Amino acid sequence: MLEKIRVTIWNEYRHELESPQVAAVYPDGIHGALAAFLGGVDAFEIRTATLDEPEHGLTEEVLAETDVLIWWGHKAHDEVDDAIAARVAARVHAGMGFIALHSAHYAKPFKCLMGSTCSLCWRDDGEKERIWTVRPAHPIAAGVPTHFEIDPEEMYGEPFGIPEPDELIFISWFAGGEVFRSGATWQRSHGRVFYFRPGHETFPTYADANVQRVITNAVRWARPTVNLPDSAPRAERLEP
Amino acid sequence: MLEKIRVTIWNEYRHELESPQVAAVYPDGIHGALAAFLGGVDAFEIRTATLDEPEHGLTEEVLAETDVLIWWGHKAHDEVDDAIAARVAARVHAGMGFIALHSAHYAKPFKCLMGSTCSLCWRDDGEKERIWTVRPAHPIAAGVPTHFEIDPEEMYGEPFGIPEPDELIFISWFAGGEVFRSGATWQRSHGRVFYFRPGHETFPTYADANVQRVITNAVRWARPTVNLPDSAPRAERLEP
Amino acid sequence: MLEKIRVTIWNEYRHELESPQVAAVYPDGIHGALAAFLGGVDAFEIRTATLDEPEHGLTEEVLAETDVLIWWGHKAHDEVDDAIAARVAARVHAGMGFIALHSAHYAKPFKCLMGSTCSLCWRDDGEKERIWTVRPAHPIAAGVPTHFEIDPEEMYGEPFGIPEPDELIFISWFAGGEVFRSGATWQRSHGRVFYFRPGHETFPTYADANVQRVITNAVRWARPTVNLPDSAPRAERLEP
Amino acid sequence: MLEKIRVTIWNEYRHELESPQVAAVYPDGIHGALAAFLGGVDAFEIRTATLDEPEHGLTEEVLAETDVLIWWGHKAHDEVDDAIAARVAARVHAGMGFIALHSAHYAKPFKCLMGSTCSLCWRDDGEKERIWTVRPAHPIAAGVPTHFEIDPEEMYGEPFGIPEPDELIFISWFAGGEVFRSGATWQRSHGRVFYFRPGHETFPTYADANVQRVITNAVRWARPTVNLPDSAPRAERLEP
Repeated sequence: MLEKIRVTIWNEYRHELESPQVAAVYPDGIHGALAAFLGGVDAFEIRTATLDEPEHGLTEEVLAETDVLIWWGHKAHDEVDDAIAARVAARVHAGMGFIALHSAHYAKPFKCLMGSTCSLCWRDDGEKERIWTVRPAHPIAAGVPTHFEIDPEEMYGEPFGIPEPDELIFISWFAGGEVFRSGATWQRSHGRVFYFRPGHETFPTYADANVQRVITNAVRWARPTVNLPDSAPRAERLEP
Repeated sequence: MLEKIRVTIWNEYRHELESPQVAAVYPDGIHGALAAFLGGVDAFEIRTATLDEPEHGLTEEVLAETDVLIWWGHKAHDEVDDAIAARVAARVHAGMGFIALHSAHYAKPFKCLMGSTCSLCWRDDGEKERIWTVRPAHPIAAGVPTHFEIDPEEMYGEPFGIPEPDELIFISWFAGGEVFRSGATWQRSHGRVFYFRPGHETFPTYADANVQRVITNAVRWARPTVNLPDSAPRAERLEP
Repeated sequence: MLEKIRVTIWNEYRHELESPQVAAVYPDGIHGALAAFLGGVDAFEIRTATLDEPEHGLTEEVLAETDVLIWWGHKAHDEVDDAIAARVAARVHAGMGFIALHSAHYAKPFKCLMGSTCSLCWRDDGEKERIWTVRPAHPIAAGVPTHFEIDPEEMYGEPFGIPEPDELIFISWFAGGEVFRSGATWQRSHGRVFYFRPGHETFPTYADANVQRVITNAVRWARPTVNLPDSAPRAERLEP
Repeated sequence: MLEKIRVTIWNEYRHELESPQVAAVYPDGIHGALAAFLGGVDAFEIRTATLDEPEHGLTEEVLAETDVLIWWGHKAHDEVDDAIAARVAARVHAGMGFIALHSAHYAKPFKCLMGSTCSLCWRDDGEKERIWTVRPAHPIAAGVPTHFEIDPEEMYGEPFGIPEPDELIFISWFAGGEVFRSGATWQRSHGRVFYFRPGHETFPTYADANVQRVITNAVRWARPTVNLPDSAPRAERLEP
């Protein structure tokens, strides 16, 4: 039998505490909403961590026991300690999966893994987003229809300052006229990275069945295949 | 001084002869419209070829003197001789650039180079297309704005059955609700391939300044760097 | 419980019948040697097919019941019927996995899927090959050491006329002085393609434990995720 | 007429001052050796910068006037100020080309751009390196033979902890038995990055004609196409 996938859901958890509007949408925090549906998957073992815990809840021990780390952050990216962002990146390099959600395009670990600006244009009026599955055979798209809608959502538009994705899975269409590469993967050393766009804090996006399916699929896909800490050994001569 | 880039514009040239509506838009044929603006570039030397010429106008001699081949076809893909499609692909393999326009997603040489279905969904009602530049630093996007519109155009929608592009440069937004990877590149052996979506025969798309700029840039980008005919030699041992 | 993966092993099966030297190495044919170790995997259901069977053993029915097709061919690539090569490619497009071994770099279905020459240089003197795992986290490399040797093997050298791989997993070092991209993957429409270099007919390469492990891993990796026959439908307008 | 390409050659410049052996090979520093041959190209305008200059010689002004930055470092990566490494990366994001040589695989700006460990194995005994051109049509390979040798050189071996390259151009074979992806490119936001392996400080590698050709080609290739500082604007609604 396969071992369980140990998932840590990291949330900034500030909007929910400061804004009654957001608290109404996510009474248990965004991490709570994610934990609720991911916790329903037998194969997953869920824990959560938030910015204001000691070491942001991401101690060496927690990361060592994490197979896949999900990240949601927005207004306090700068408060994430550089050393902890580097610790997260190092765990990804050794094999841990990393899933960046929505405004985590600007999270320190994600930017550090991408090596690019990760900038985009945006509009938070609330409008219809239609997500197209451009690579239906990818495991992250399993069971996801050719297109599905979230209405309303915040708009994110191109150009998105990412490296050319290894695999582009979803592209969004917005009623206001923009497009966006909404779901994409990258390998970084031995770990897998997935970015998924939806999830503005004022909208109940994480209650959407298709969004839940994508994130659930992504956890399975991002599961580590190895655990190879960084090293640069001197090698003995093999020949003749 | 750089030598001129020898461009051959290939057009099926059937719609223009059979449909008064198309003839009104492209009185000199689509190849004529392309030749008109590409011919204005000093660095280019232009010739055209069409389906109903002997060997479709693509003799060994013509291809040997072609640096970049532009291809427009639609209703008569099947009438292109397999041997000539293979001849075109072989020239691309040796270094020639290849630019597939619009419905040439289904042209034999393009399908042969892609190794995929190249299928898509479509709707020819005529609607607004807005093209977003997702990789503004690419030479093919030089001087192209962040977005530009063509109205009306035929819609092409995802999923587009192409291999993951080496470089994705443009994504289209359609008023009817779809998105499409409208500009993308691939290397095939020693040659460069670019696909560019716009250009339905009933609309004056090739008169658009941005469309012209993209195609002009693409010709420069696709210029051969080598001329290396296929070979698989036995190699002598190098060591010790 | 997961359904079994239905594997069809295709072999040209000429060398073994014509050359006593090859017959001594592969008394049951190369397909037989592959079937022997793959058949030991509970999750796999194996059948074989060869060039001289009717339709090369690759009827529509056989392909419809094949999840992953393994291909070994060398001296009779030209005798493979174009229509059957196209049938194989179409099944890959719909989702079937395809694994090309050694001299199958020149097999019709592989070349058709790659869209490139797939040429290389070679030397069949027999010499040491050392295969390096450059992407150890890839599922195809699971359990494979950082490097392993096959001695003797035929040499294949760069430049290898393939499209830039989606994922480069193995690189070979040869005692005679060459290198080669020995294990690489590509997505083609909805199907997964893997090329793996080792396996000259005069050497018992397919008895090597690491070679067996790679091929076994590749079968699991190449398993279809979807079955989506080609189509290009007209789409109804979604908006407003 | 094209404007000149402004090249800044950055060198750590410690080995040459501390080791008589290195000083004998590079009496003017590695930057001096690079400047000597690059300075012979009319189209290039060369300046140099070293670690121990104020701001490592990489002030905002210098970077603003740099089209392509070449980087050689080895024993003092840690002494490069984080803020200046970030400044370099930001200039690459805006369009500046970046060429990392040899031990600069561990330079802060390169690691920051890659988002991976960039680790490798190594052996500094001095042995023959044979570099194979696997993508001869790439502009960086223009005029470079199918293979060339450097003897002796330091060995760098796989696995090399880089993201899958956008373009793999060179692979090295080492007499001691290893292989290495020696020349590769990546796009990072609007800038182009090239890594090139050769150049251990105790060997006269930068006097080699082929090495010089590759670096010269890379400067031309890495030239900026745009200058787009990072931004993330709010966008006005475009539709209807």
